[in-house]
Amino acid sequence: MPISMSSASLPVFQTMLGNLSHMLDKAQAFVDAKGCDPVALTQYRLAPDMLPFTRQVLIACDAAKNGVARLSGVEAPKFADDEQTLAELKARIAKTLAYLATVPAQTLDGTEAKDITFPVGKDSVRTMQGEAYLKQWVLPNMFFHIVTAYNILRHNGVDLGKKDYLLGAAA
Amino acid sequence: MPISMSSASLPVFQTMLGNLSHMLDKAQAFVDAKGCDPVALTQYRLAPDMLPFTRQVLIACDAAKNGVARLSGVEAPKFADDEQTLAELKARIAKTLAYLATVPAQTLDGTEAKDITFPVGKDSVRTMQGEAYLKQWVLPNMFFHIVTAYNILRHNGVDLGKKDYLLGAAA
Repeated sequence: MPISMSSASLPVFQTMLGNLSHMLDKAQAFVDAKGCDPVALTQYRLAPDMLPFTRQVLIACDAAKNGVARLSGVEAPKFADDEQTLAELKARIAKTLAYLATVPAQTLDGTEAKDITFPVGKDSVRTMQGEAYLKQWVLPNMFFHIVTAYNILRHNGVDLGKKDYLLGAAA
Repeated sequence: MPISMSSASLPVFQTMLGNLSHMLDKAQAFVDAKGCDPVALTQYRLAPDMLPFTRQVLIACDAAKNGVARLSGVEAPKFADDEQTLAELKARIAKTLAYLATVPAQTLDGTEAKDITFPVGKDSVRTMQGEAYLKQWVLPNMFFHIVTAYNILRHNGVDLGKKDYLLGAAA
């Protein structure tokens, strides 16, 4: 079957968010084993002007959720963004995956040339065609925040490797 | 035009490797301004058992080069992997982009169901179909190493932001 806008998006979001959820399990195991304050991990930043771990997870989820919603032209559910603990972050990923499972593939297919207007930063918007929006904006953003979450955990000593990041890749 | 294996791969590799080259310019400007030993940056690791910055750049390049070569069924050029300086890493990206520019789109198109066998680690191989190989292996790998390179630079104080990472995204 030829590649399509739905096959280029949904399975990638689902695999990578599933892998992120798996990384959170390993982060929880690390906190439990060390007996350390989990906030030291969930609020960790790689630089003072980068976002903390919690926000990396939330934005990875929203990149997928909002990307799919904008392409398919339906309103995305809004979440309160009040997750703090690793368990709450896992629940946020689960809610995002549950939403993705409700989006019919045919609402994404054929959106290659559709104009998508989306917010950039706090005060501006940008318009890209659907295919470029997916490939050059949504996917790079989702990967950015998942890999940054991974790097924060690795930098703090959580037992992770590339195989955890690529866990759900299916043939 | 419908999305295709070539449009889902080449422009993404080209944009992201171009952005990585731009980040290297900012890393060079940082080293020049600080007067610090550039090796402190190029050999920096986010964890003792992670790869240093130089290897992040080389593997990002090779993810794109080898991914395209395996999908299209042509032999990829082999490079010596002896880059050390930021200038040499920039040249490696340029060589990779020059190679990508020689790959005809039609050698990638239609490879969705083609079996691709590729090395995993030092001692094993894996086979995935072309579309899954691109979406679930090549792209996640390329993004992993570009974002980790970005995070190493950010963690060390290089003046970078999300706009640098997404620089070349075109509508």
